Amino acid sequence: MAAPPKEPLVITDKAEMREWSRSARRQGRTIALVPTMGFLHEGHLSLVREARRRADAVVVSVYVNPGQFAPSEDLSTYPSDFEGDLGKLRAVPGGVDVVFRPQNLYDYGQREVGGSGVESDNGSVSCLEEKGMGHEAWVRVERLEKGMCGKSRPVFFRGVATVVTKLFNIVEPDVSVFGKKDYQQWRIIRRLVRDLDFSIQVIGSEVMRDHDGLALSSRNVHLSPEEREKALSISRSLSRAKSAAEKGQVNCQNLKDSVIQAIQEAGGKIDYAEIVDQESLEAVEEIRSPVVFCVAAWFGKVRLIDNIEINV
Amino acid sequence: MAAPPKEPLVITDKAEMREWSRSARRQGRTIALVPTMGFLHEGHLSLVREARRRADAVVVSVYVNPGQFAPSEDLSTYPSDFEGDLGKLRAVPGGVDVVFRPQNLYDYGQREVGGSGVESDNGSVSCLEEKGMGHEAWVRVERLEKGMCGKSRPVFFRGVATVVTKLFNIVEPDVSVFGKKDYQQWRIIRRLVRDLDFSIQVIGSEVMRDHDGLALSSRNVHLSPEEREKALSISRSLSRAKSAAEKGQVNCQNLKDSVIQAIQEAGGKIDYAEIVDQESLEAVEEIRSPVVFCVAAWFGKVRLIDNIEINV
Repeated sequence: MAAPPKEPLVITDKAEMREWSRSARRQGRTIALVPTMGFLHEGHLSLVREARRRADAVVVSVYVNPGQFAPSEDLSTYPSDFEGDLGKLRAVPGGVDVVFRPQNLYDYGQREVGGSGVESDNGSVSCLEEKGMGHEAWVRVERLEKGMCGKSRPVFFRGVATVVTKLFNIVEPDVSVFGKKDYQQWRIIRRLVRDLDFSIQVIGSEVMRDHDGLALSSRNVHLSPEEREKALSISRSLSRAKSAAEKGQVNCQNLKDSVIQAIQEAGGKIDYAEIVDQESLEAVEEIRSPVVFCVAAWFGKVRLIDNIEINV
Repeated sequence: MAAPPKEPLVITDKAEMREWSRSARRQGRTIALVPTMGFLHEGHLSLVREARRRADAVVVSVYVNPGQFAPSEDLSTYPSDFEGDLGKLRAVPGGVDVVFRPQNLYDYGQREVGGSGVESDNGSVSCLEEKGMGHEAWVRVERLEKGMCGKSRPVFFRGVATVVTKLFNIVEPDVSVFGKKDYQQWRIIRRLVRDLDFSIQVIGSEVMRDHDGLALSSRNVHLSPEEREKALSISRSLSRAKSAAEKGQVNCQNLKDSVIQAIQEAGGKIDYAEIVDQESLEAVEEIRSPVVFCVAAWFGKVRLIDNIEINV
């Protein structure tokens, strides 16, 4: 008989979360953290299963981080389904120990020094406010954040690096798992951990794909059946480029041209198509060392990203 | 009979330092960190004594941080006297448990992914290099770092915030002690700890002064006896301004004018003289809440800083 589903403990308070982790560590247990923005799909659950294999206890954070949305991006309508998320996490073999669901990670309460006539800010400090006592410490990974997705979303990686730093300091995990679907984000987090001397192992989990090869994404539900069929041009052309490279086609312009052509012929609009060093994310002209081929493209109103590692 | 002087354990390796701290914590001991750049004087030792009162174990780091020096500033001739520092630390009542003296906190060794013809960078990565696999993650406290010392030293606080983040992640202290002589730095560290959710209590230790009132600084040794006498105009005029404010003189322009005049009459050259909110460090026009009066001035080739809190 299968074990009954494990009910995760839901924690909303920072201090309580940290105390839970410290108590687990005192008992000799290792902790893995999977940061998410909720609205979980099978891709997220693969990260949770990876976390389950890597540590004794698994914490999944569910927090839509305002710090990584530009004013033009629509934070307020970001989808959420917390009860649905809990159901999916219960069904993961071995379960999840804690779901950390903070209300506002940028709420720091009152000023330290009182006495001003204006009794200062109320509790709802926004990380986006430009003055006053709001959040103002930011972590940047200055080179890795510049290219690819950083070009079209200039505050995105600053927000990601900062909220991940905060989550690391609250949860104090031994291991943290990120999806390689967001390849640039994954490399940024690894660099951040190295450069700021966090004692955390950052695991990259492989891209999860649907039966037809489409990389899993919350955004896929917005694709019409026809757009979805066309969007397969991304994964199919990337796969062909990898095969070609493995057979000796090392000229990146040729490889990129064939991917761009395939996506455009299917009706997609290219945001970028780049072949970059796996660690520095610097563009290469010829493949002589491990690279990753990264693509972002629009199909209708949906922006999709995908990538494939080429280890020659 | 007094206890014999305690011999501090000198640790140079990051991993060894962290393991020492974790071992101490497993034994239920709390840890205080005092970050220094060495060449210790009585001001530093007052921080160590404060640390001694705040925690079971005291770690003093001695590291001249290249990340906070601009190319125009003279990192290579920064003074050091490690044996002298050890002697002073031995003499602190209760002693010091660990002196953490890393060689290079920005040395991250080899690349993760191999295979490139160039077997990558050697071990001596500089945090100041502009390309390659060097350090690139930086912490900025964006508003607090802008004014006062941040104006004349634009990379200074970025470097301080980043190295302190690294030291916090390596030493994992419960408490860290900073001197309020470097008032802006102290406020920046407090904000950093709040905004990045470090579980560390940041203590500000009061300005240490010589018998004549001069704020202690490593740079004081470069003052001639005559310059030193003139430099007393800083602490004396600040002290008079505080008394005037407490007697009802709340107009900041008047208070600043009298300090600037006193320092200039003594032959000093003002870098800045500002009366700012103690927490936001924003300039105020009238004193109605706790402020701090901060001054930087040159006497000969020596730049001195000092400040005084005014709590009306």
